[in-house]
Amino acid sequence: MTDPLPPRPSFALAPPARVGMAVADVDTPALLLDLDAFEANLAAMTASLADTGIRLRPHAKSHKCPEIARRQIAAGAVGICCQKASEAEAFIQAGIGDVLVANEVVGDAKLRRLARLAGQATLSVCVDHADAVRDLEAAMAREGARVDVLVEVDVGASRCGVEAGPAVVTLARLVADAPHLRFAGLQGYQGSAQHVRSAGGRRDAIATAGRLLRECVDLLRSAGLDPRVVTGGGTGTYLNEATSGVYTEVQAGSYIFMDADYARNLDAAGKPFAAFRQSLFVLSTVMSRPTDRRAVVDVGLKAHSVDSGMPLVADVAGATYVNVSDEHGVLDLAGDRVSLGQKLRLIPGHCDPTVNLYDWLVCYRGERVEDVWPIAARGAFY
Amino acid sequence: MTDPLPPRPSFALAPPARVGMAVADVDTPALLLDLDAFEANLAAMTASLADTGIRLRPHAKSHKCPEIARRQIAAGAVGICCQKASEAEAFIQAGIGDVLVANEVVGDAKLRRLARLAGQATLSVCVDHADAVRDLEAAMAREGARVDVLVEVDVGASRCGVEAGPAVVTLARLVADAPHLRFAGLQGYQGSAQHVRSAGGRRDAIATAGRLLRECVDLLRSAGLDPRVVTGGGTGTYLNEATSGVYTEVQAGSYIFMDADYARNLDAAGKPFAAFRQSLFVLSTVMSRPTDRRAVVDVGLKAHSVDSGMPLVADVAGATYVNVSDEHGVLDLAGDRVSLGQKLRLIPGHCDPTVNLYDWLVCYRGERVEDVWPIAARGAFY
Repeated sequence: MTDPLPPRPSFALAPPARVGMAVADVDTPALLLDLDAFEANLAAMTASLADTGIRLRPHAKSHKCPEIARRQIAAGAVGICCQKASEAEAFIQAGIGDVLVANEVVGDAKLRRLARLAGQATLSVCVDHADAVRDLEAAMAREGARVDVLVEVDVGASRCGVEAGPAVVTLARLVADAPHLRFAGLQGYQGSAQHVRSAGGRRDAIATAGRLLRECVDLLRSAGLDPRVVTGGGTGTYLNEATSGVYTEVQAGSYIFMDADYARNLDAAGKPFAAFRQSLFVLSTVMSRPTDRRAVVDVGLKAHSVDSGMPLVADVAGATYVNVSDEHGVLDLAGDRVSLGQKLRLIPGHCDPTVNLYDWLVCYRGERVEDVWPIAARGAFY
Repeated sequence: MTDPLPPRPSFALAPPARVGMAVADVDTPALLLDLDAFEANLAAMTASLADTGIRLRPHAKSHKCPEIARRQIAAGAVGICCQKASEAEAFIQAGIGDVLVANEVVGDAKLRRLARLAGQATLSVCVDHADAVRDLEAAMAREGARVDVLVEVDVGASRCGVEAGPAVVTLARLVADAPHLRFAGLQGYQGSAQHVRSAGGRRDAIATAGRLLRECVDLLRSAGLDPRVVTGGGTGTYLNEATSGVYTEVQAGSYIFMDADYARNLDAAGKPFAAFRQSLFVLSTVMSRPTDRRAVVDVGLKAHSVDSGMPLVADVAGATYVNVSDEHGVLDLAGDRVSLGQKLRLIPGHCDPTVNLYDWLVCYRGERVEDVWPIAARGAFY
């Protein structure tokens, strides 16, 4: 379990596309990346943060793809976030030099993995419990390594994190006193604010998060502890964190792809949030045309995560993806007709868990496949 | 794309367990199989069909695991079903000799794959469109292969399949006249009946399906076409198909695992459906204990599919999995307390798409890991 990286199960599939082929010839289901839209999103993020002085540390849990991480760093990101030690391992193996595991790491096997990585890159990790500090210190000591540690604060999402206030100082002190840990600062991720539809609702949630974190920063400084980093933020709110005066870096991830759920967010003018373009699609094949109104595509639950709703049908006016099963999606055709064998692009309901179903990302420009990138950290959930 | 099986992306993870270790030491998230329950389910299925004369062809889309297919065949199954040509390839490579692709296969790359497989095993496939018959014949002719073909009939699920009646005979005739296709019979899968809660509701749905298929069989025989096989049925209804007098084989798949959603079905006495035991679990780690009532586990959307609801928490009285995000699950603890680092078994809401998230199945008996099986066809959705 702790040996480095023996192979996956024996059966292995070729990528669904070759460089140079037409998108219409790509085998399905396939995860498509529109490179023009992706590159525009990279540039839009860089531009939007240019005057803030805030660092960008994009969350790689969205893409799990080292090629994308490299392009994010080339566009100005200081490094990446991961959620898991094994995910960090995939990116560090691929040469990414600065990784924050923006999550708690609990359990012997995971801590051993993390400690091995600490000598290979600039690595940081979150804690929210005294026992976790003890176990992290022990794992780093066994490996003779040191790691930067952030105390996670619950800023309103009611998931992980300690309550803002004196408990943060107590935990930070434990970290600072541990010989193999370095207290680096705070994480305050307001996950439940990302999909609040109104811009005002998102702004108010992050104002609360910023106020709580400011209190913690003041308490820490009074105690002689310097929180050099205050990190958090997602695609729905990152500009709120960036202008809060307390966050030093933002962790947005989905901005490179977008999805149907993020597209339902509204901007300050009450219009659909359009700072970033839809670059991610699932390519499907029409595999059955049983009735005039009904088409069935070969993308079901194993090729698209429905946790945030059904995918949208791009390119076909009046088509609605109305029913999903393991390997099938049923479309209702109220407008344009489609033919058996036709390839249709779908817009994912939720990008992150959909990407995690695929081994390959098929990158295209116009109608041609330009590259095929491995989603190397797919399934890296340890 | 059509070359046989180059490797998956370079980063590869070790299995989360070693044979002989304690279940409590397995890394998480892990997919666990309780071997006692699994073996009881194999035996219960064999026993329940013993007096019917009906063949069992279990659906391997549920498990994607050749080791399980071998055990199903050893317990009396005639072969397996798959949903995809690439899934069939994984099982045929692993030595499974009789595979029905219980689905339509549409698209050049998929048909080439299917045609290559036709010479390597007893293979059959479904059609529901004249154009698909033409393309399947062309692909088999190019490969110099022949394949058994079933006409899929829509028996009430409103997904794929032709309407029962003369259209079935027309399509069967096209198949029978194609030099590289053999007309083998009918598929009538009533997917939407599987999770109807009342036994009477499921019985009525399959009675309708059986009546429609009987009409088709009579029409085919009148036309001189012999439907040797009539196949369908799932874990929720398979005894209805088996006693219908028209089906010749059943395709149940989930019976080996069960899940929280199937457990909500009722039997004829109005009691929870208990013919099969829960053998499949997701092992999680408690990674955060932010408040007295709240625990957070490391199983979120990338380790459990929520399409049929949240997982249930086994082993902890009063615990409810109340909120999911990509890598986290929030538990409300109304009863027993749990400690940081504790391993908890979850009962999946829906087995099939959850299994497809994992590369390995950790098989245990009592508290010990007895085997680790590759989920070889994970991601084989082409």
